[in-house]
Amino acid sequence: MWKPDRESAVPLYRQIADRLQEMIVHGEYPPGSPLPSERKLAEQFGVNRSTVVLAYAELRSLGLVESRPGSKTQVSSNCNHAASRTPEWHRYAENGGFLPNVPFLRRIRDALAQDTAIIDFASGKLSTDLSPIREINEIMHSCTYHPDNGSDVSQGFPLLREALASFLERNRGIRTSPSSILITSGSQQSLYLISQCLLSPGDAIAVETPSFTRSLSMFQSAGLRIYPLPLDEHGVRPESIRELYSRHRIKMLFVNPNFQNPTGTLLQADRKKLLLDTASELGLPIVEDDPISLTAYNMDYPLPIKAEDASSNTLYIGSFSKIAAAGLRIGWIVAPKSVISRLADARKQMDIGFSVIPQQIAAAFIESPLFMPHLDRLRLQLQLKLNATVAALHEHLNGLVQFSVPQGGLHLWCKIVPTVQDGKFLDEALRRGVAFVPGSVYGAEPGYMRLTYARPQVEEIEEGIKRLAAALLAASE
Amino acid sequence: MWKPDRESAVPLYRQIADRLQEMIVHGEYPPGSPLPSERKLAEQFGVNRSTVVLAYAELRSLGLVESRPGSKTQVSSNCNHAASRTPEWHRYAENGGFLPNVPFLRRIRDALAQDTAIIDFASGKLSTDLSPIREINEIMHSCTYHPDNGSDVSQGFPLLREALASFLERNRGIRTSPSSILITSGSQQSLYLISQCLLSPGDAIAVETPSFTRSLSMFQSAGLRIYPLPLDEHGVRPESIRELYSRHRIKMLFVNPNFQNPTGTLLQADRKKLLLDTASELGLPIVEDDPISLTAYNMDYPLPIKAEDASSNTLYIGSFSKIAAAGLRIGWIVAPKSVISRLADARKQMDIGFSVIPQQIAAAFIESPLFMPHLDRLRLQLQLKLNATVAALHEHLNGLVQFSVPQGGLHLWCKIVPTVQDGKFLDEALRRGVAFVPGSVYGAEPGYMRLTYARPQVEEIEEGIKRLAAALLAASE
Repeated sequence: MWKPDRESAVPLYRQIADRLQEMIVHGEYPPGSPLPSERKLAEQFGVNRSTVVLAYAELRSLGLVESRPGSKTQVSSNCNHAASRTPEWHRYAENGGFLPNVPFLRRIRDALAQDTAIIDFASGKLSTDLSPIREINEIMHSCTYHPDNGSDVSQGFPLLREALASFLERNRGIRTSPSSILITSGSQQSLYLISQCLLSPGDAIAVETPSFTRSLSMFQSAGLRIYPLPLDEHGVRPESIRELYSRHRIKMLFVNPNFQNPTGTLLQADRKKLLLDTASELGLPIVEDDPISLTAYNMDYPLPIKAEDASSNTLYIGSFSKIAAAGLRIGWIVAPKSVISRLADARKQMDIGFSVIPQQIAAAFIESPLFMPHLDRLRLQLQLKLNATVAALHEHLNGLVQFSVPQGGLHLWCKIVPTVQDGKFLDEALRRGVAFVPGSVYGAEPGYMRLTYARPQVEEIEEGIKRLAAALLAASE
Repeated sequence: MWKPDRESAVPLYRQIADRLQEMIVHGEYPPGSPLPSERKLAEQFGVNRSTVVLAYAELRSLGLVESRPGSKTQVSSNCNHAASRTPEWHRYAENGGFLPNVPFLRRIRDALAQDTAIIDFASGKLSTDLSPIREINEIMHSCTYHPDNGSDVSQGFPLLREALASFLERNRGIRTSPSSILITSGSQQSLYLISQCLLSPGDAIAVETPSFTRSLSMFQSAGLRIYPLPLDEHGVRPESIRELYSRHRIKMLFVNPNFQNPTGTLLQADRKKLLLDTASELGLPIVEDDPISLTAYNMDYPLPIKAEDASSNTLYIGSFSKIAAAGLRIGWIVAPKSVISRLADARKQMDIGFSVIPQQIAAAFIESPLFMPHLDRLRLQLQLKLNATVAALHEHLNGLVQFSVPQGGLHLWCKIVPTVQDGKFLDEALRRGVAFVPGSVYGAEPGYMRLTYARPQVEEIEEGIKRLAAALLAASE
């Protein structure tokens, strides 16, 4: 019988909350059903009652359980509105995907918070030294804030939209105008606005699988039915779209064609054409997330789908978070004006806008002579880290993992050859001071992992891979 | 028969869109019903067909009308989900409130955008000269951005929460800790998070009436049923709460007790006690919006309800937008930790956070020796503007308006004595180069107006009031 692990870095109450969440997710405690009393669970798990109280409080704050004074704690009967943080896992299971495993992410996050010496291949972002800190400070110190700079323009600071329009034309082959651009706080907000404004609860969408997990939970909370778009080493497979359309009347496609997160794949040209043609024929909008094309090594920047989309079927989402200062939190949507207008209007209900200061800094950065050299340096550094990671994998995990070397981006997607339990492997890794993300978090089958080689320092990479190898051996026993 | 006014500053297509929106709102074109063809409407209004095309595009972008290829334009059948920008006015009418008039706001916004010489008593914010521009730039130029500064802390930059905790204790009598504070982008986002996370569609809430209009549309879009909490010159009247609770099972109260927007009233002490006692007895959370207490003239800062709430029934919302740099977009919620946690978690689905830079600047500003002198200067300036406004009203509108002089804040709430049509009065005012907001925008009965004396330059105030007087005379004929 399961009991929490007292040796683990994860607090006992968290382990218990995670365990209960998995059971709820798997239907062992269906919606509306009563949960064991605190006293009973404490006995069962061999912990103090206060530990169970904390675990239930955690689940209550997630909206998973509810309790009324004088009655038992029970599983929430209603998880189906925009506020619910927990996706309706059972629906996703109906769709044939694998259940994304959010407790893994929490386990990783807690471990990283507690121990800063962990070698981090998990956090999907750049290491601090790759951020243009000096450049941002230089620009910030020469910026002048003025309230009339356009804080209250709902589409975002006009000079930033102009700078982006030029940037997108020069670097992404997208011809657009400032009025077709909406500034957001990043891809997450862009996707949130699109799901809330252009789709209704109950609508069906198709999302590449495996896929970036945080959007998945958000789609689910928005009440959308998610169907997987299969992927292989050449990117998404568009031939499945037609069937998804006729069977499920999907209303929108979500793709990340260039250096896909988490698989690192690049959508092949003929696939891109088929995708565009199919979507166009069916009148299906494509939402394209394009955050890291500019990290392409040894090749021209891969063009986005948007650049080749003559029929304006594509809503294009980008952001600076992976290629420039994540701390500015600048993202954008490029879409037909009426859509931009609608999204901007809806956003005004959620918040009146964000500070003009980061937008000013971002506009100045894009236009400054500091920007392209920064991108060049970033690309070089990423390539160094990728090479170090690949070399270390060959050295220490030869035959134990399989992978294709990506041509850009931040992530390396590996298939794990021996059979291991994802959770066990993760625990062994964290115990040894290295973090990665199990592929099931992204909806992949068990036995995959994502390594964000961009994150650790280059000199930590070999040691990190060594630790991973030791963990894999321990988990395979 | 109504035709658009070719003399008006408002574009013809906008007038037509507004007109159609009013008719839809009033039920003359019910949901799902067909609208006239573009050609027919163009004939009827004596305009080009392209003008009607633009008007329909405007309504489409608002989600009010829909059209499918090959079939007529019709009124949207589905306006009832979180994405819908248009409130369900007919519901609000059922509740006995007056229909907030959003087309008025658009008319004002368009006029202000087109003519910068308009004397602006409408925009509910400080004039540029009252913003601490010099101080913000000084701080920004000495700040150092670093990615590890906590961009990804979902509750908000830790140093800002610490600075706010001290600030709130010193200035608002609220004892709290950084972990009970959530940084938001302002009151709008704070209210949005609360409605989305702590309430469900169909829930009933009670909101002071008249009230800040932008929150009203947001509540409606969230599917909440809004019941008015009556107000008089001493603030909200808490004796109506009990009845609202037993008849409608209201789940939450929304109040703005100190220098209420738009009426400027201050909640009297015995009312405050009754409000707290009633809410506590019924287990009703109070959401308190407290943006401008620190502008109190000639009196100590009025305490918030939160300071006297021993039973943690109050969710406290504040922001800097009215007392410091609106361009930073910093707001906060103070609430029990489990609530803060829940709101922070839910927000992560909507966006991953906002830039640490404005948060750093705000933290430094609060803690700097520049902050209190700024507030002192602000208070003095506001009082000067208020005095000028009151003097001008006595001089030029004596007997034509009635008002109480507020003891702080930004707004003066006037009852208009002669009978005039709000829309006509507004048009005459805009035509003469002065803007105000008709009270019906806030859900008040016709015949009221809000003058934001904080907004125009002090030397413009008398001229602005003179123009208002001329407009009132013209509209009374």
